[in-house]
Amino acid sequence: MDNLFTTLDSLNEEIISIRRHLHKHPELSFEEVETPKYIADFHEQLGHEVKTGVGGNGVLAYLKGNHEGPTVALRADFDALPIHEETDLEFQSVNDGVMHACGHDGHTATLLGVAKALNKHKDDLHGTVVFIHQHAEELPPGGAKPMIEDGVLHGVDVIFGTHLQAQMPLYEINYRTDELQASSDSFEVTIFGKGGHGAMPQDTKDSILIASQLVDNFQQIVSRRVNPLQSAVLSVCSFEAIGPYNVIANTAKIKGTVRTLNEETRELMEQEMQRVIEGTCHLSGADFEFKYDRGYPVLINHKEETEFVMEVAETVPEVQEIKETEPIMGGEDYSYYLQEVKGTYFFTGAQPEGTENPYPHHHPKFDIDEKSLVIAAKILAKSTMEYMLKNK
Amino acid sequence: MDNLFTTLDSLNEEIISIRRHLHKHPELSFEEVETPKYIADFHEQLGHEVKTGVGGNGVLAYLKGNHEGPTVALRADFDALPIHEETDLEFQSVNDGVMHACGHDGHTATLLGVAKALNKHKDDLHGTVVFIHQHAEELPPGGAKPMIEDGVLHGVDVIFGTHLQAQMPLYEINYRTDELQASSDSFEVTIFGKGGHGAMPQDTKDSILIASQLVDNFQQIVSRRVNPLQSAVLSVCSFEAIGPYNVIANTAKIKGTVRTLNEETRELMEQEMQRVIEGTCHLSGADFEFKYDRGYPVLINHKEETEFVMEVAETVPEVQEIKETEPIMGGEDYSYYLQEVKGTYFFTGAQPEGTENPYPHHHPKFDIDEKSLVIAAKILAKSTMEYMLKNK
Amino acid sequence: MDNLFTTLDSLNEEIISIRRHLHKHPELSFEEVETPKYIADFHEQLGHEVKTGVGGNGVLAYLKGNHEGPTVALRADFDALPIHEETDLEFQSVNDGVMHACGHDGHTATLLGVAKALNKHKDDLHGTVVFIHQHAEELPPGGAKPMIEDGVLHGVDVIFGTHLQAQMPLYEINYRTDELQASSDSFEVTIFGKGGHGAMPQDTKDSILIASQLVDNFQQIVSRRVNPLQSAVLSVCSFEAIGPYNVIANTAKIKGTVRTLNEETRELMEQEMQRVIEGTCHLSGADFEFKYDRGYPVLINHKEETEFVMEVAETVPEVQEIKETEPIMGGEDYSYYLQEVKGTYFFTGAQPEGTENPYPHHHPKFDIDEKSLVIAAKILAKSTMEYMLKNK
Amino acid sequence: MDNLFTTLDSLNEEIISIRRHLHKHPELSFEEVETPKYIADFHEQLGHEVKTGVGGNGVLAYLKGNHEGPTVALRADFDALPIHEETDLEFQSVNDGVMHACGHDGHTATLLGVAKALNKHKDDLHGTVVFIHQHAEELPPGGAKPMIEDGVLHGVDVIFGTHLQAQMPLYEINYRTDELQASSDSFEVTIFGKGGHGAMPQDTKDSILIASQLVDNFQQIVSRRVNPLQSAVLSVCSFEAIGPYNVIANTAKIKGTVRTLNEETRELMEQEMQRVIEGTCHLSGADFEFKYDRGYPVLINHKEETEFVMEVAETVPEVQEIKETEPIMGGEDYSYYLQEVKGTYFFTGAQPEGTENPYPHHHPKFDIDEKSLVIAAKILAKSTMEYMLKNK
Repeated sequence: MDNLFTTLDSLNEEIISIRRHLHKHPELSFEEVETPKYIADFHEQLGHEVKTGVGGNGVLAYLKGNHEGPTVALRADFDALPIHEETDLEFQSVNDGVMHACGHDGHTATLLGVAKALNKHKDDLHGTVVFIHQHAEELPPGGAKPMIEDGVLHGVDVIFGTHLQAQMPLYEINYRTDELQASSDSFEVTIFGKGGHGAMPQDTKDSILIASQLVDNFQQIVSRRVNPLQSAVLSVCSFEAIGPYNVIANTAKIKGTVRTLNEETRELMEQEMQRVIEGTCHLSGADFEFKYDRGYPVLINHKEETEFVMEVAETVPEVQEIKETEPIMGGEDYSYYLQEVKGTYFFTGAQPEGTENPYPHHHPKFDIDEKSLVIAAKILAKSTMEYMLKNK
Repeated sequence: MDNLFTTLDSLNEEIISIRRHLHKHPELSFEEVETPKYIADFHEQLGHEVKTGVGGNGVLAYLKGNHEGPTVALRADFDALPIHEETDLEFQSVNDGVMHACGHDGHTATLLGVAKALNKHKDDLHGTVVFIHQHAEELPPGGAKPMIEDGVLHGVDVIFGTHLQAQMPLYEINYRTDELQASSDSFEVTIFGKGGHGAMPQDTKDSILIASQLVDNFQQIVSRRVNPLQSAVLSVCSFEAIGPYNVIANTAKIKGTVRTLNEETRELMEQEMQRVIEGTCHLSGADFEFKYDRGYPVLINHKEETEFVMEVAETVPEVQEIKETEPIMGGEDYSYYLQEVKGTYFFTGAQPEGTENPYPHHHPKFDIDEKSLVIAAKILAKSTMEYMLKNK
Repeated sequence: MDNLFTTLDSLNEEIISIRRHLHKHPELSFEEVETPKYIADFHEQLGHEVKTGVGGNGVLAYLKGNHEGPTVALRADFDALPIHEETDLEFQSVNDGVMHACGHDGHTATLLGVAKALNKHKDDLHGTVVFIHQHAEELPPGGAKPMIEDGVLHGVDVIFGTHLQAQMPLYEINYRTDELQASSDSFEVTIFGKGGHGAMPQDTKDSILIASQLVDNFQQIVSRRVNPLQSAVLSVCSFEAIGPYNVIANTAKIKGTVRTLNEETRELMEQEMQRVIEGTCHLSGADFEFKYDRGYPVLINHKEETEFVMEVAETVPEVQEIKETEPIMGGEDYSYYLQEVKGTYFFTGAQPEGTENPYPHHHPKFDIDEKSLVIAAKILAKSTMEYMLKNK
Repeated sequence: MDNLFTTLDSLNEEIISIRRHLHKHPELSFEEVETPKYIADFHEQLGHEVKTGVGGNGVLAYLKGNHEGPTVALRADFDALPIHEETDLEFQSVNDGVMHACGHDGHTATLLGVAKALNKHKDDLHGTVVFIHQHAEELPPGGAKPMIEDGVLHGVDVIFGTHLQAQMPLYEINYRTDELQASSDSFEVTIFGKGGHGAMPQDTKDSILIASQLVDNFQQIVSRRVNPLQSAVLSVCSFEAIGPYNVIANTAKIKGTVRTLNEETRELMEQEMQRVIEGTCHLSGADFEFKYDRGYPVLINHKEETEFVMEVAETVPEVQEIKETEPIMGGEDYSYYLQEVKGTYFFTGAQPEGTENPYPHHHPKFDIDEKSLVIAAKILAKSTMEYMLKNK
């Protein structure tokens, strides 16, 4: 196994150069063309069986070890964001308005490095590795769901994955044995009032007032109806009722997001929103349309598999600290995999060394420390091999 | 004087044909070109002294009677609206998206008819008639103010004017001896919150929530702070904070209108809005910008002059009913003239005969009964002559 | 008639001493015992037919003139208020906590003076005078309604009455030819939520929050749903949900008043309150009970009778100014009489001479100028005689 | 040690009879007289050094083991609640309106049993046991704080305590290694508006409306300003503004409670409330008074000591399940002890066997299963002895 680490160390430069290549050529969610081609080529050159166009733009690659054993899936996402890059990197995005501002370039480079390393250690591999290269993580409904529907988890026993975190110290690993990331739903409410002359409100149903009261009334769902020990967020992020200054608006539309850390609370949120909308509209005699779209579910890690991976992480020489993290309210469609098979998702610290206030993810100046890539690779690769040994 | 009515009856067809011409060729507020030219030509052919480009696109014409006496101003507005006409009239608008949907075509035709009639009775005229053909009544800041600044009321003793009303029975005249139409102001409030991730409200100042509470808090100004015997309207007519469903908005902007029937209440509204905005923003720690633009003032008729014109109206054979009207909350820049000189503004019934539910003003199917034109003309023309006789 | 004024001037001291006697011995609404006895005695000594216990504690007296003619009713109320008097008057209330703080002592003294004067002029009286001494004006449901149900308006042709106004200049009379005082209704809403531990809101329905939102939502009825040209007030004046600091309240009760100046708006207010309550409770899943009690209707004077009385008022030497007043939003159960017979109610200025800021009605230091009594008496007495002459 | 359990088993009936005695004679917080006397007698009979009147009505007793070693404190509270008991127990409360409806009778009986048992095992005791019998846990500011100020923790190394839980299965023990119970603060806001006639809102500042808006505005503190991963509750539990239906209230007073699970959030709540009150009052020009009283702090267990006690609990034969619990939002002044010394507080299941829906604490029919007492006693007694052995 120390052998495995040595192999990965020797691949470090290649991994970094892959990351830089991907960084330079980012592609938007659901619009990925060159990236999956690049990934497929890489695996083909390693002699792996490859499927493309999986569940959309996803790529699947299989590495069969020289021994029988369980099937371990490793997942990395590869889509980028509609952000205009403002870093000074040499390998800046050449696709104007598109940027790898969330580290998916690093995830993919890491996984390709793992693939090459494990391939070299085929003789010690007791089972099959499934490399899930997923498109479109950033944009619900996401790529995970269609890839699963397309069979990527067929025969898979366990799945591992990681997210590089630019605001977490390098050399640190964070885990959580249960809910790690929130469900992430979206909603849209349209209020159908009755427009009219701004000077004659009595002949109208003032849709802007109604929608405003709705925004305010939504607050009590979190403050009064959710168990204070549970986490929930309801944010109205868009309010659209644009018109001339003197004509009362016929309709007003609001949009937003709901986050929770369990399904029960998620159910409750939708139900209570329905009730609040009904009452708020009734009191002004207005009609409404309420659309609630379930996005990614809560990402819930499996305890045993998480602890297993963290034990592996402890053996990685670069790792200096392993900590349990609080959940985060952001969503992640890795959650779908964990609804189907056991596994874990953990965070790998990637804060650029020497930086005190690293730019957050999704920022035009976002960057990661590339030393994090090989660390993540070592944990994923060794967890794979160890898991096979343990479960052969 | 019966003579005067006979003259106007003989001009009836011409008045109607002028109205139809104008209806067919409507021009938007502040963009009037052909209409003022048409008006100027008409007066010039009558030999009246004419000024064009007055205060913008206004036209001024003078008819001097053959006797000395007071100066009487008559005002008609001539701009149209950005509405796509949907009537079946033969003389429908040929300017797509522009329509005389408020009767200003009728006002102008009436006043030109009056001009021609009074010209014919020059020998009995004891004074000077000033024909104020005003542009841009529909769009604040309006044409009245710059025309006054350009001197149109210089030497004027009294002013008369009327508005054709499609929803008031034909043959009916409405007057009011004091406040007839509301002040009409506009405002804009921008809330400067702090944007951020929809799942992390604790790091933001939610500008949509703040603006929503503001819309709600504004309600109490009318309900609690204005004397219930006073009329006041505060309508928020536009709410703009459009963004993705999962990013809390940095800023939100609302716009609207305020109407009152006296200056004291108008002052109060602005003051109380300031106070409500300050408090609402303070409670969320947000900043704001508040712009309050005073539009047309309250239109306040003069009692004596109003009663005088109504006495004249009683002598017009077509007039079947003269009634005091309640004020209306819509604005009218005729109010500026009445701040400078005595006079009155009254309503002439123009509901198309046989119609039970006439279309309202500003509606794409709006129409008037053309029989109203000569009625309005008789009241204006005879009031002018009688006023001169009485005050010579 | 000048004769009548002379008679009243000679009765002035007696009127004042009656007022002082009543002032010293005030009685609460519906609890009047001595006051009606005093009134009945007075009329009996004049030989008038008297009925007591009319519609409760009311007193009715009849003076038949020596000639045939119409029946004129004059009304004065005689109840006092639950206020602890704080004036320095010699004839201060001896009934602790009860005070004539609204001038009803003056109304009654005036009417008794009128009775004595008209009695002396019986020979010139062409008809019958009905003196309606009404109890319980201050406390809905009031004394007017049961007195009417008890037949006090039987055969009555017209009714006159006045209210002394401490904040209106002495020697001034105010009238209005249509709506003078508002309808005055009361309401009570009880919110049935679900109580529980203050630390576990999720298991409760927070009745205080629901009732608070109701108070806020009520604002939009006046601000958005009532025609701005109409007057309306909805005030929540009591909020009761008292409990320990850490137990969420099961129920909350609010009470208040609604005022309008016409029946249509009154109807609208009740309807819209129902809708707002329903919606507000629905959004929290709470139940409610809504009681709306119609109090005094709008007091609407009759035009012709009002103008008649004001013509009489012009002949009263002390009267210096007669003005039309705006309506006032306070209620008055005189309104019931005017729903049955023609007549008018006017205001008699009673501001203590030399006082700049007179105390308002219902204030512990309230006082009137006693010179107002004979002025009111002259208008009522002469209106009675003149009306009879005109309508005999 | 098995010996210790045998001793406690032999004391079981006595423990139960103590509990019944106390249950029959409950005393209110801060009014305890007989209970502390009873406790002091019990310890004196065992020959323990006893202090009474500690920090109020508290009792302190010392048992010195025959060997040197650490000082272990054990705490039980003994006050009852102002509830009228409605159980059918033979040993029902004889003090009408006072009831042991939270299990403090059981806590005290348990601790006295522990005292007697440890006294019998004095020869094996390596240190000193401090029995803290605390008054007034139910009523802030509570008895813990003054007892600590009176020195009860002087020389103490560790403290253990438990709460019997009627809604937790018998034979189950719950623990938590960090925050177990919420901080529990109270607040009071008085709004100083300006009262006046219900029909003339324009002359008032409507304190009921302002306080209502405040209740509503408070909602956003939890929904928007607190990290969704943190727990916080703000409940308004009392609203007092009672008056006649037609007089706008001068002042309105609200009271309530705030709960959090850490000091940072607690600070934030108070700060944000201040801001929300300021803004809400400013927007109506009203004044206010805001009192925020810090009650019990967050109860934060110490990890090592908690794990130690749970290891002991595992050895108690009756214990069937030991689980980590979620925090609870209710407060407990045991928190003060844990701010001073290390230790833990755990929950002992006491649901009456055979009952499916046990009555909650503070319910008039509340009861516990007395079999829980000896279980709690075994854990406390053995933890004491073991702790001494381990730390001697």
